[in-house]
Amino acid sequence: MSRFVSYSTGRETGWGHLDGDTITDLTAHFPTMRAAIESGALAALAKAAGPHLALDQVALTIPVTDPEKIICVGVNYPDRNAEYKDGQDAPPNMSLFIRFPRSFTGHGQPLIRPPESHQLDYEGEVVIVIGKAGRRISQAAAYDHIAGISIANEGTLRDWVRHAKFNVTQGKNFDASGSIGPWLVPFESAAQLDDIALETRVNGELRQQDRTSRMLFPFRRIVEYISTFTTLVPGDVILCGTPTGAGARFDPPIWLKPGDVVEVSAEGIGTLTNTIADEIPA
Amino acid sequence: MSRFVSYSTGRETGWGHLDGDTITDLTAHFPTMRAAIESGALAALAKAAGPHLALDQVALTIPVTDPEKIICVGVNYPDRNAEYKDGQDAPPNMSLFIRFPRSFTGHGQPLIRPPESHQLDYEGEVVIVIGKAGRRISQAAAYDHIAGISIANEGTLRDWVRHAKFNVTQGKNFDASGSIGPWLVPFESAAQLDDIALETRVNGELRQQDRTSRMLFPFRRIVEYISTFTTLVPGDVILCGTPTGAGARFDPPIWLKPGDVVEVSAEGIGTLTNTIADEIPA
Repeated sequence: MSRFVSYSTGRETGWGHLDGDTITDLTAHFPTMRAAIESGALAALAKAAGPHLALDQVALTIPVTDPEKIICVGVNYPDRNAEYKDGQDAPPNMSLFIRFPRSFTGHGQPLIRPPESHQLDYEGEVVIVIGKAGRRISQAAAYDHIAGISIANEGTLRDWVRHAKFNVTQGKNFDASGSIGPWLVPFESAAQLDDIALETRVNGELRQQDRTSRMLFPFRRIVEYISTFTTLVPGDVILCGTPTGAGARFDPPIWLKPGDVVEVSAEGIGTLTNTIADEIPA
Repeated sequence: MSRFVSYSTGRETGWGHLDGDTITDLTAHFPTMRAAIESGALAALAKAAGPHLALDQVALTIPVTDPEKIICVGVNYPDRNAEYKDGQDAPPNMSLFIRFPRSFTGHGQPLIRPPESHQLDYEGEVVIVIGKAGRRISQAAAYDHIAGISIANEGTLRDWVRHAKFNVTQGKNFDASGSIGPWLVPFESAAQLDDIALETRVNGELRQQDRTSRMLFPFRRIVEYISTFTTLVPGDVILCGTPTGAGARFDPPIWLKPGDVVEVSAEGIGTLTNTIADEIPA
Protein backbone atom coordinates (compact mmCIF):
# COMPACT_ATOMS: atom_id res chain seq x y z
CA MET A 1 0.00 0.00 0.00
CA SER A 2 1.38 3.39 -1.01
CA ARG A 3 1.15 6.22 1.50
CA PHE A 4 1.70 9.91 0.77
CA VAL A 5 2.31 12.47 3.52
CA SER A 6 2.65 16.23 3.79
CA TYR A 7 4.95 17.64 6.45
CA SER A 8 6.57 20.65 8.03
CA THR A 9 10.13 20.84 9.30
CA GLY A 10 9.36 24.07 11.13
CA ARG A 11 11.22 26.08 8.48
CA GLU A 12 9.73 24.58 5.35
CA THR A 13 6.88 22.40 4.14
CA GLY A 14 6.96 19.49 1.74
CA TRP A 15 5.33 16.25 0.80
CA GLY A 16 6.43 12.82 -0.26
CA HIS A 17 6.05 9.06 -0.24
CA LEU A 18 6.31 7.21 3.06
CA ASP A 19 8.02 3.81 3.18
CA GLY A 20 8.43 2.45 6.71
CA ASP A 21 9.76 5.41 8.69
CA THR A 22 11.40 7.10 5.71
CA ILE A 23 9.89 9.89 3.62
CA THR A 24 11.06 10.23 0.02
CA ASP A 25 10.55 13.94 -0.60
CA LEU A 26 8.74 14.64 -3.88
CA THR A 27 8.56 18.42 -3.69
CA ALA A 28 10.92 18.69 -6.66
CA HIS A 29 8.40 16.74 -8.79
CA PHE A 30 5.33 18.74 -7.72
CA PRO A 31 5.31 21.58 -5.18
CA THR A 32 2.33 20.16 -3.25
CA MET A 33 0.33 16.94 -2.98
CA ARG A 34 -2.59 18.81 -4.52
CA ALA A 35 -0.51 19.64 -7.60
CA ALA A 36 0.48 15.97 -7.90
CA ILE A 37 -3.16 14.92 -7.66
CA GLU A 38 -4.08 17.46 -10.36
CA SER A 39 -1.43 15.97 -12.63
CA GLY A 40 -3.08 12.55 -12.41
CA ALA A 41 0.30 10.99 -11.58
CA LEU A 42 -0.01 10.54 -7.81
CA ALA A 43 -0.02 6.74 -7.62
CA ALA A 44 2.95 6.47 -10.03
CA LEU A 45 5.00 8.81 -7.81
CA ALA A 46 5.31 6.04 -5.22
CA LYS A 47 8.34 4.92 -7.24
CA ALA A 48 9.83 8.38 -7.87
CA ALA A 49 13.22 9.34 -6.45
CA GLY A 50 13.95 12.17 -4.03
CA PRO A 51 15.85 13.14 -0.88
CA HIS A 52 15.14 11.03 2.21
CA LEU A 53 13.89 12.33 5.56
CA ALA A 54 13.23 10.39 8.75
CA LEU A 55 9.56 10.47 9.80
CA ASP A 56 10.52 11.52 13.34
CA GLN A 57 12.34 14.61 12.02
CA VAL A 58 9.16 16.25 10.73
CA ALA A 59 5.65 17.16 11.89
CA LEU A 60 2.94 15.69 9.67
CA THR A 61 0.34 18.17 8.41
CA ILE A 62 -3.00 17.43 6.80
CA PRO A 63 -2.31 15.58 3.52
CA VAL A 64 -3.82 18.15 1.13
CA THR A 65 -2.75 21.39 2.76
CA ASP A 66 -4.39 23.78 0.27
CA PRO A 67 -7.69 22.27 -0.93
CA GLU A 68 -10.23 24.47 -2.70
CA LYS A 69 -12.90 22.91 -0.50
CA ILE A 70 -13.34 20.75 2.58
CA ILE A 71 -16.93 19.50 2.74
CA CYS A 72 -18.32 17.44 5.62
CA VAL A 73 -21.33 15.11 5.57
CA GLY A 74 -23.42 15.08 8.76
CA VAL A 75 -25.70 12.39 10.20
CA ASN A 76 -24.58 9.53 7.92
CA TYR A 77 -24.60 6.30 9.97
CA PRO A 78 -27.52 4.26 11.38
CA ASP A 79 -29.08 5.65 14.57
CA ARG A 80 -27.22 8.96 14.21
CA ASN A 81 -30.48 10.76 13.35
CA ALA A 82 -32.14 9.26 16.46
CA GLU A 83 -29.26 10.61 18.59
CA TYR A 84 -30.60 14.12 17.99
CA LYS A 85 -33.85 13.19 19.85
CA ASP A 86 -35.75 15.88 17.95
CA GLY A 87 -38.52 13.56 16.73
CA GLN A 88 -37.63 14.23 13.10
CA ASP A 89 -37.58 11.47 10.50
CA ALA A 90 -34.31 10.62 8.79
CA PRO A 91 -33.77 13.30 6.14
CA PRO A 92 -34.04 12.57 2.40
CA ASN A 93 -30.75 14.36 1.67
CA MET A 94 -27.44 14.57 3.46
CA SER A 95 -26.60 17.54 5.69
CA LEU A 96 -23.43 19.30 4.57
CA PHE A 97 -21.16 21.83 6.20
CA ILE A 98 -17.78 23.31 5.43
CA ARG A 99 -14.54 23.47 7.39
CA PHE A 100 -11.43 25.52 6.75
CA PRO A 101 -8.03 23.79 6.42
CA ARG A 102 -6.78 25.59 9.55
CA SER A 103 -9.46 23.85 11.63
CA PHE A 104 -7.44 20.63 11.14
CA THR A 105 -4.02 19.57 12.30
CA GLY A 106 -1.94 16.54 11.32
CA HIS A 107 -1.38 13.09 12.82
CA GLY A 108 0.61 13.25 16.05
CA GLN A 109 -0.11 16.95 16.65
CA PRO A 110 -2.33 18.03 19.56
CA LEU A 111 -6.00 18.79 19.06
CA ILE A 112 -6.48 22.17 20.70
CA ARG A 113 -9.13 22.78 23.38
CA PRO A 114 -9.75 26.56 23.31
CA PRO A 115 -10.47 28.65 26.40
CA GLU A 116 -13.95 29.47 25.05
CA SER A 117 -15.28 25.91 25.37
CA HIS A 118 -14.54 22.69 27.22
CA GLN A 119 -16.98 20.69 25.10
CA LEU A 120 -14.37 19.33 22.66
CA ASP A 121 -15.65 16.09 21.10
CA TYR A 122 -14.32 13.52 18.60
CA GLU A 123 -15.90 12.23 15.39
CA GLY A 124 -14.04 9.49 13.50
CA GLU A 125 -14.60 9.62 9.74
CA VAL A 126 -13.44 8.23 6.41
CA VAL A 127 -12.13 10.87 3.99
CA ILE A 128 -12.15 10.88 0.20
CA VAL A 129 -10.05 13.24 -1.94
CA ILE A 130 -11.15 14.17 -5.44
CA GLY A 131 -8.76 13.44 -8.32
CA LYS A 132 -10.73 14.43 -11.41
CA ALA A 133 -12.91 17.52 -11.82
CA GLY A 134 -16.61 17.14 -12.48
CA ARG A 135 -20.09 18.57 -12.15
CA ARG A 136 -23.22 16.42 -11.92
CA ILE A 137 -21.14 13.25 -11.62
CA SER A 138 -23.21 10.06 -11.84
CA GLN A 139 -23.02 7.41 -9.12
CA ALA A 140 -21.67 4.99 -11.72
CA ALA A 141 -18.78 7.35 -12.52
CA ALA A 142 -18.21 8.60 -8.95
CA TYR A 143 -15.27 6.33 -8.08
CA ASP A 144 -13.39 7.48 -11.19
CA HIS A 145 -13.27 10.95 -9.57
CA ILE A 146 -11.61 9.82 -6.31
CA ALA A 147 -7.80 10.03 -6.14
CA GLY A 148 -7.21 8.91 -2.58
CA ILE A 149 -8.58 8.09 0.85
CA SER A 150 -7.66 9.12 4.37
CA ILE A 151 -9.03 9.41 7.92
CA ALA A 152 -10.35 12.37 9.93
CA ASN A 153 -11.12 13.19 13.51
CA GLU A 154 -13.79 15.79 12.85
CA GLY A 155 -13.27 17.43 16.26
CA THR A 156 -16.13 19.68 17.33
CA LEU A 157 -16.84 22.25 20.04
CA ARG A 158 -20.38 21.13 20.84
CA ASP A 159 -21.73 24.24 22.52
CA TRP A 160 -20.54 26.37 19.57
CA VAL A 161 -22.34 24.19 17.02
CA ARG A 162 -25.68 25.72 18.01
CA HIS A 163 -24.36 29.11 19.05
CA ALA A 164 -26.71 30.94 16.65
CA LYS A 165 -30.02 30.47 14.86
CA PHE A 166 -28.67 28.50 11.89
CA ASN A 167 -25.66 26.37 10.93
CA VAL A 168 -22.86 24.58 12.72
CA THR A 169 -20.03 26.71 11.24
CA GLN A 170 -18.56 28.04 14.48
CA GLY A 171 -18.31 24.77 16.43
CA LYS A 172 -16.72 23.04 13.44
CA ASN A 173 -14.06 25.63 12.72
CA PHE A 174 -12.01 26.35 15.83
CA ASP A 175 -8.35 26.37 14.77
CA ALA A 176 -6.69 22.92 15.10
CA SER A 177 -9.79 21.35 16.68
CA GLY A 178 -9.77 18.37 14.27
CA SER A 179 -7.26 16.30 12.33
CA ILE A 180 -6.79 14.57 8.97
CA GLY A 181 -4.21 11.89 8.18
CA PRO A 182 -1.86 10.29 8.83
CA TRP A 183 -1.53 9.99 5.07
CA LEU A 184 -3.33 9.72 1.77
CA VAL A 185 -3.65 6.25 0.25
CA PRO A 186 -4.22 6.16 -3.53
CA PHE A 187 -7.68 4.87 -4.36
CA GLU A 188 -7.46 2.04 -6.86
CA SER A 189 -10.22 -0.44 -5.99
CA ALA A 190 -13.82 -0.19 -4.73
CA ALA A 191 -12.93 -2.69 -1.98
CA GLN A 192 -10.87 0.06 -0.34
CA LEU A 193 -14.10 1.94 0.51
CA ASP A 194 -17.24 -0.16 0.14
CA ASP A 195 -17.22 -2.12 3.41
CA ILE A 196 -14.37 -1.12 5.70
CA ALA A 197 -14.41 -0.95 9.50
CA LEU A 198 -14.24 2.49 11.14
CA GLU A 199 -13.41 2.71 14.86
CA THR A 200 -12.64 5.47 17.36
CA ARG A 201 -10.87 4.88 20.66
CA VAL A 202 -10.33 7.33 23.53
CA ASN A 203 -7.49 6.32 25.86
CA GLY A 204 -7.83 2.83 24.39
CA GLU A 205 -11.59 2.52 25.06
CA LEU A 206 -13.71 1.75 21.97
CA ARG A 207 -16.27 4.54 21.54
CA GLN A 208 -17.34 4.39 17.88
CA GLN A 209 -17.51 1.30 15.67
CA ASP A 210 -19.29 0.81 12.38
CA ARG A 211 -18.72 -0.16 8.76
CA THR A 212 -18.91 2.03 5.67
CA SER A 213 -21.37 -0.40 4.05
CA ARG A 214 -23.94 0.91 6.55
CA MET A 215 -23.58 4.59 5.62
CA LEU A 216 -26.99 6.16 4.96
CA PHE A 217 -25.53 8.05 2.00
CA PRO A 218 -22.81 5.90 0.36
CA PHE A 219 -19.64 7.37 -1.14
CA ARG A 220 -21.02 7.27 -4.68
CA ARG A 221 -24.14 9.17 -3.62
CA ILE A 222 -22.03 11.76 -1.76
CA VAL A 223 -20.01 12.56 -4.89
CA GLU A 224 -23.17 12.68 -7.02
CA TYR A 225 -25.08 14.94 -4.61
CA ILE A 226 -22.33 17.46 -3.86
CA SER A 227 -21.41 17.78 -7.54
CA THR A 228 -25.01 18.69 -8.31
CA PHE A 229 -24.40 22.21 -7.03
CA THR A 230 -20.63 22.71 -7.08
CA THR A 231 -17.88 21.66 -9.47
CA LEU A 232 -15.60 19.25 -7.63
CA VAL A 233 -11.91 19.76 -8.47
CA PRO A 234 -8.70 17.80 -7.78
CA GLY A 235 -7.67 18.06 -4.14
CA ASP A 236 -11.18 18.67 -2.81
CA VAL A 237 -11.61 16.87 0.51
CA ILE A 238 -14.84 15.24 1.65
CA LEU A 239 -15.37 13.94 5.19
CA CYS A 240 -18.05 11.26 4.98
CA GLY A 241 -19.74 11.26 8.39
CA THR A 242 -19.27 9.65 11.79
CA PRO A 243 -20.89 6.63 13.52
CA THR A 244 -22.85 6.81 16.77
CA GLY A 245 -20.95 7.13 20.03
CA ALA A 246 -19.50 10.64 20.14
CA GLY A 247 -18.96 11.97 23.66
CA ALA A 248 -21.95 14.32 23.35
CA ARG A 249 -24.31 11.34 23.18
CA PHE A 250 -23.39 9.94 26.62
CA ASP A 251 -25.54 10.90 29.63
CA PRO A 252 -23.90 12.91 31.03
CA PRO A 253 -21.72 13.84 28.05
CA ILE A 254 -18.02 12.93 28.21
CA TRP A 255 -15.85 15.71 26.78
CA LEU A 256 -12.22 15.36 25.75
CA LYS A 257 -9.71 16.74 28.24
CA PRO A 258 -6.00 17.55 28.05
CA GLY A 259 -3.88 14.41 27.88
CA ASP A 260 -6.59 12.24 26.34
CA VAL A 261 -5.47 10.21 23.32
CA VAL A 262 -7.91 9.74 20.43
CA GLU A 263 -7.26 7.10 17.78
CA VAL A 264 -9.39 6.78 14.65
CA SER A 265 -8.77 3.59 12.68
CA ALA A 266 -10.07 2.79 9.21
CA GLU A 267 -9.50 -0.70 7.82
CA GLY A 268 -6.84 -0.72 5.13
CA ILE A 269 -5.93 2.94 5.62
CA GLY A 270 -4.36 3.20 9.07
CA THR A 271 -4.78 4.90 12.44
CA LEU A 272 -4.93 8.65 13.03
CA THR A 273 -3.73 9.54 16.54
CA ASN A 274 -3.90 12.85 18.40
CA THR A 275 -3.58 13.91 22.01
CA ILE A 276 -5.65 16.74 23.48
CA ALA A 277 -3.98 19.91 24.75
CA ASP A 278 -5.27 23.18 26.12
CA GLU A 279 -4.48 26.19 23.99
CA ILE A 280 -1.48 28.14 25.16
CA PRO A 281 -2.54 31.80 25.40
CA ALA A 282 -0.80 34.06 22.89
CA MET B 1 -11.89 57.02 -4.40
CA SER B 2 -9.51 54.25 -5.47
CA ARG B 3 -11.00 51.14 -7.02
CA PHE B 4 -9.20 47.84 -7.61
CA VAL B 5 -10.53 45.15 -9.94
CA SER B 6 -9.65 41.59 -10.89
CA TYR B 7 -10.37 40.45 -14.43
CA SER B 8 -10.12 37.75 -17.06
CA THR B 9 -9.33 38.28 -20.73
CA GLY B 10 -10.44 34.73 -21.53
CA ARG B 11 -6.82 33.66 -21.95
CA GLU B 12 -5.34 35.15 -18.78
CA THR B 13 -6.30 36.69 -15.47
CA GLY B 14 -4.99 39.83 -13.81
CA TRP B 15 -5.84 42.65 -11.50
CA GLY B 16 -5.25 46.37 -11.35
CA HIS B 17 -6.40 49.85 -10.52
CA LEU B 18 -9.47 51.24 -12.29
CA ASP B 19 -9.57 54.91 -13.30
CA GLY B 20 -12.64 55.81 -15.35
CA ASP B 21 -12.87 53.05 -17.95
CA THR B 22 -9.15 52.24 -17.93
CA ILE B 23 -7.47 49.48 -15.93
CA THR B 24 -3.82 49.95 -15.00
CA ASP B 25 -2.64 46.36 -14.75
CA LEU B 26 -0.65 45.68 -11.56
CA THR B 27 0.05 41.98 -12.04
CA ALA B 28 3.75 42.72 -12.43
CA HIS B 29 3.77 44.26 -8.92
CA PHE B 30 1.83 41.43 -7.23
CA PRO B 31 0.45 38.35 -8.98
CA THR B 32 -3.01 38.70 -7.35
CA MET B 33 -5.02 41.26 -5.40
CA ARG B 34 -4.76 38.94 -2.39
CA ALA B 35 -0.96 39.10 -2.57
CA ALA B 36 -1.12 42.91 -2.73
CA ILE B 37 -3.40 42.97 0.32
CA GLU B 38 -1.00 40.66 2.18
CA SER B 39 1.85 43.07 1.42
CA GLY B 40 -0.03 45.91 3.14
CA ALA B 41 0.60 48.13 0.11
CA LEU B 42 -2.79 47.96 -1.61
CA ALA B 43 -3.88 51.59 -1.19
CA ALA B 44 -0.48 52.91 -2.31
CA LEU B 45 -0.71 50.87 -5.53
CA ALA B 46 -3.40 53.26 -6.80
CA LYS B 47 -0.48 55.36 -8.09
CA ALA B 48 1.65 52.51 -9.45
CA ALA B 49 2.41 52.23 -13.17
CA GLY B 50 1.46 49.37 -15.46
CA PRO B 51 0.03 48.46 -18.88
CA HIS B 52 -3.41 49.90 -19.67
CA LEU B 53 -6.50 47.88 -20.62
CA ALA B 54 -9.94 49.13 -21.54
CA LEU B 55 -12.62 47.99 -19.09
CA ASP B 56 -14.82 46.75 -21.94
CA GLN B 57 -12.04 44.44 -23.16
CA VAL B 58 -12.16 42.25 -20.04
CA ALA B 59 -14.64 40.34 -17.90
CA LEU B 60 -14.52 41.37 -14.25
CA THR B 61 -14.15 38.51 -11.76
CA ILE B 62 -14.68 38.62 -8.01
CA PRO B 63 -12.07 41.01 -6.55
CA VAL B 64 -10.20 38.50 -4.35
CA THR B 65 -10.22 35.43 -6.56
CA ASP B 66 -8.39 33.07 -4.20
CA PRO B 67 -9.40 33.86 -0.59
CA GLU B 68 -8.67 31.38 2.17
CA LYS B 69 -12.24 31.90 3.41
CA ILE B 70 -15.54 33.44 2.40
CA ILE B 71 -17.77 33.72 5.47
CA CYS B 72 -21.37 34.95 5.33
CA VAL B 73 -23.42 36.44 8.19
CA GLY B 74 -27.12 35.52 8.20
CA VAL B 75 -30.13 37.33 9.69
CA ASN B 76 -28.37 40.65 10.37
CA TYR B 77 -30.89 43.47 9.72
CA PRO B 78 -34.04 44.50 11.66
CA ASP B 79 -37.11 42.34 11.03
CA ARG B 80 -35.06 39.67 9.25
CA ASN B 81 -35.53 37.26 12.17
CA ALA B 82 -39.30 37.84 12.05
CA GLU B 83 -39.29 36.98 8.32
CA TYR B 84 -38.59 33.36 9.26
CA LYS B 85 -41.98 33.18 11.08
CA ASP B 86 -40.71 30.40 13.32
CA GLY B 87 -41.66 32.10 16.60
CA GLN B 88 -38.03 32.17 17.75
CA ASP B 89 -36.53 35.18 19.50
CA ALA B 90 -33.71 37.05 17.83
CA PRO B 91 -30.57 34.98 18.44
CA PRO B 92 -27.80 36.13 20.79
CA ASN B 93 -25.09 35.34 18.22
CA MET B 94 -24.87 35.72 14.46
CA SER B 95 -25.55 32.78 12.15
CA LEU B 96 -22.60 32.03 9.88
CA PHE B 97 -22.19 29.96 6.77
CA ILE B 98 -19.49 29.48 4.18
CA ARG B 99 -19.45 29.87 0.41
CA PHE B 100 -16.85 28.76 -2.10
CA PRO B 101 -15.30 31.30 -4.51
CA ARG B 102 -16.82 29.47 -7.48
CA SER B 103 -20.31 30.19 -6.15
CA PHE B 104 -19.72 33.84 -7.12
CA THR B 105 -19.22 35.56 -10.45
CA GLY B 106 -18.12 39.13 -11.21
CA HIS B 107 -19.94 42.37 -12.02
CA GLY B 108 -21.59 42.25 -15.44
CA GLN B 109 -21.53 38.47 -15.68
CA PRO B 110 -24.76 36.45 -15.57
CA LEU B 111 -26.01 34.87 -12.35
CA ILE B 112 -26.77 31.28 -13.30
CA ARG B 113 -30.17 29.68 -12.64
CA PRO B 114 -29.48 25.90 -12.61
CA PRO B 115 -31.88 23.28 -13.97
CA GLU B 116 -32.29 21.83 -10.45
CA SER B 117 -34.10 24.87 -9.04
CA HIS B 118 -36.06 27.87 -10.22
CA GLN B 119 -36.04 29.48 -6.78
CA LEU B 120 -33.04 31.78 -7.43
CA ASP B 121 -33.20 34.78 -5.08
CA TYR B 122 -31.11 37.92 -4.49
CA GLU B 123 -29.55 39.21 -1.26
CA GLY B 124 -27.74 42.56 -1.39
CA GLU B 125 -24.86 42.81 1.10
CA VAL B 126 -21.87 44.89 2.14
CA VAL B 127 -18.55 43.01 1.99
CA ILE B 128 -15.41 43.52 4.07
CA VAL B 129 -12.00 42.07 3.16
CA ILE B 130 -9.42 41.38 5.84
CA GLY B 131 -6.02 43.07 5.52
CA LYS B 132 -4.20 42.06 8.69
CA ALA B 133 -4.18 38.61 10.30
CA GLY B 134 -5.57 38.15 13.78
CA ARG B 135 -7.24 35.86 16.28
CA ARG B 136 -9.54 37.11 19.06
CA ILE B 137 -9.53 40.62 17.60
CA SER B 138 -11.20 43.18 19.89
CA GLN B 139 -14.00 45.39 18.61
CA ALA B 140 -11.77 48.41 19.24
CA ALA B 141 -9.08 46.99 16.94
CA ALA B 142 -11.44 45.45 14.37
CA TYR B 143 -11.26 48.23 11.77
CA ASP B 144 -7.45 48.03 11.74
CA HIS B 145 -7.86 44.52 10.29
CA ILE B 146 -10.02 45.56 7.30
CA ALA B 147 -8.19 46.28 4.01
CA GLY B 148 -11.13 47.04 1.75
CA ILE B 149 -14.87 46.99 1.14
CA SER B 150 -17.06 45.75 -1.68
CA ILE B 151 -20.63 44.64 -2.50
CA ALA B 152 -22.22 41.21 -2.91
CA ASN B 153 -25.36 39.73 -4.33
CA GLU B 154 -25.50 36.66 -2.12
CA GLY B 155 -27.67 34.77 -4.62
CA THR B 156 -29.42 31.75 -3.13
CA LEU B 157 -31.38 28.73 -4.37
CA ARG B 158 -34.10 28.81 -1.71
CA ASP B 159 -35.39 25.25 -1.93
CA TRP B 160 -31.84 23.91 -1.63
CA VAL B 161 -31.16 25.90 1.56
CA ARG B 162 -33.25 23.47 3.60
CA HIS B 163 -32.62 20.41 1.45
CA ALA B 164 -31.36 18.41 4.45
CA LYS B 165 -31.64 18.29 8.24
CA PHE B 166 -29.00 20.92 9.01
CA ASN B 167 -27.23 23.84 7.31
CA VAL B 168 -27.76 26.00 4.26
CA THR B 169 -24.59 24.85 2.43
CA GLN B 170 -26.21 23.51 -0.73
CA GLY B 171 -28.51 26.44 -1.53
CA LYS B 172 -25.67 28.90 -1.00
CA ASN B 173 -23.09 27.17 -3.18
CA PHE B 174 -24.45 26.58 -6.66
CA ASP B 175 -21.73 27.61 -9.12
CA ALA B 176 -22.04 31.29 -10.20
CA SER B 177 -25.29 31.81 -8.27
CA GLY B 178 -24.02 34.99 -6.57
CA SER B 179 -21.67 37.89 -7.33
CA ILE B 180 -19.09 40.12 -5.64
CA GLY B 181 -17.82 43.44 -6.98
CA PRO B 182 -17.59 45.48 -9.07
CA TRP B 183 -14.36 46.35 -7.27
CA LEU B 184 -12.59 46.61 -3.94
CA VAL B 185 -12.36 50.06 -2.36
CA PRO B 186 -9.52 50.54 0.17
CA PHE B 187 -10.90 51.02 3.66
CA GLU B 188 -9.42 54.14 5.23
CA SER B 189 -12.15 55.70 7.38
CA ALA B 190 -14.93 54.41 9.66
CA ALA B 191 -17.39 56.64 7.78
CA GLN B 192 -17.03 54.29 4.79
CA LEU B 193 -18.88 51.57 6.75
CA ASP B 194 -20.67 52.85 9.84
CA ASP B 195 -23.87 54.28 8.32
CA ILE B 196 -24.08 53.71 4.58
CA ALA B 197 -27.21 53.02 2.54
CA LEU B 198 -27.63 49.53 1.02
CA GLU B 199 -30.25 49.02 -1.71
CA THR B 200 -31.23 46.22 -4.08
CA ARG B 201 -33.24 46.76 -7.26
CA VAL B 202 -34.73 44.16 -9.60
CA ASN B 203 -35.50 45.51 -13.09
CA GLY B 204 -35.32 49.00 -11.54
CA GLU B 205 -37.82 48.25 -8.73
CA LEU B 206 -36.52 48.89 -5.19
CA ARG B 207 -36.75 45.63 -3.22
CA GLN B 208 -34.28 46.02 -0.33
CA GLN B 209 -33.32 49.25 1.44
CA ASP B 210 -31.60 49.73 4.78
CA ARG B 211 -28.56 51.29 6.41
CA THR B 212 -25.55 49.56 7.93
CA SER B 213 -26.04 51.51 11.18
CA ARG B 214 -29.08 49.27 11.78
CA MET B 215 -27.21 45.96 11.48
CA LEU B 216 -27.97 43.69 14.45
CA PHE B 217 -24.32 42.66 14.59
CA PRO B 218 -22.13 45.61 13.50
CA PHE B 219 -18.93 45.19 11.49
CA ARG B 220 -16.72 45.44 14.58
CA ARG B 221 -18.68 42.68 16.32
CA ILE B 222 -18.52 40.48 13.21
CA VAL B 223 -14.72 40.65 13.12
CA GLU B 224 -14.52 40.03 16.86
CA TYR B 225 -16.90 37.07 16.85
CA ILE B 226 -15.52 35.23 13.80
CA SER B 227 -11.94 35.66 14.99
CA THR B 228 -12.87 33.98 18.27
CA PHE B 229 -12.76 30.59 16.58
CA THR B 230 -10.70 31.07 13.41
CA THR B 231 -7.60 33.09 12.58
CA LEU B 232 -8.57 35.71 10.02
CA VAL B 233 -5.90 36.26 7.34
CA PRO B 234 -5.36 38.84 4.58
CA GLY B 235 -7.79 38.35 1.71
CA ASP B 236 -10.50 36.70 3.82
CA VAL B 237 -13.91 37.86 2.62
CA ILE B 238 -16.89 38.48 4.92
CA LEU B 239 -20.42 39.10 3.61
CA CYS B 240 -22.25 41.03 6.31
CA GLY B 241 -25.92 40.13 5.86
CA THR B 242 -28.90 41.34 3.84
CA PRO B 243 -31.89 43.60 4.68
CA THR B 244 -35.53 42.48 4.51
CA GLY B 245 -37.18 42.21 1.13
CA ALA B 246 -35.67 39.19 -0.62
CA GLY B 247 -37.99 37.56 -3.16
CA ALA B 248 -38.66 34.60 -0.84
CA ARG B 249 -40.47 36.91 1.63
CA PHE B 250 -43.18 37.99 -0.81
CA ASP B 251 -46.50 36.11 -0.79
CA PRO B 252 -46.36 34.40 -3.19
CA PRO B 253 -42.55 34.45 -3.51
CA ILE B 254 -41.07 36.23 -6.53
CA TRP B 255 -38.10 34.30 -7.95
CA LEU B 256 -35.51 35.69 -10.34
CA LYS B 257 -35.97 34.64 -13.98
CA PRO B 258 -33.76 34.81 -17.07
CA GLY B 259 -33.33 38.39 -18.30
CA ASP B 260 -33.95 40.00 -14.91
CA VAL B 261 -31.40 42.65 -13.92
CA VAL B 262 -30.35 42.87 -10.27
CA GLU B 263 -28.49 45.95 -8.99
CA VAL B 264 -27.04 46.15 -5.49
CA SER B 265 -25.89 49.64 -4.49
CA ALA B 266 -23.86 50.57 -1.43
CA GLU B 267 -23.30 54.23 -0.66
CA GLY B 268 -19.73 55.30 -1.41
CA ILE B 269 -18.78 51.94 -2.93
CA GLY B 270 -20.79 51.61 -6.14
CA THR B 271 -23.36 49.42 -7.85
CA LEU B 272 -23.00 45.70 -8.57
CA THR B 273 -25.09 44.66 -11.60
CA ASN B 274 -25.89 41.19 -12.92
CA THR B 275 -28.45 39.75 -15.28
CA ILE B 276 -30.00 36.32 -14.76
CA ALA B 277 -29.44 33.50 -17.26
CA ASP B 278 -30.39 29.87 -17.39
CA GLU B 279 -27.50 27.46 -17.30
CA ILE B 280 -26.49 26.18 -20.71
CA PRO B 281 -26.33 22.37 -20.46
CA ALA B 282 -22.82 20.98 -20.88
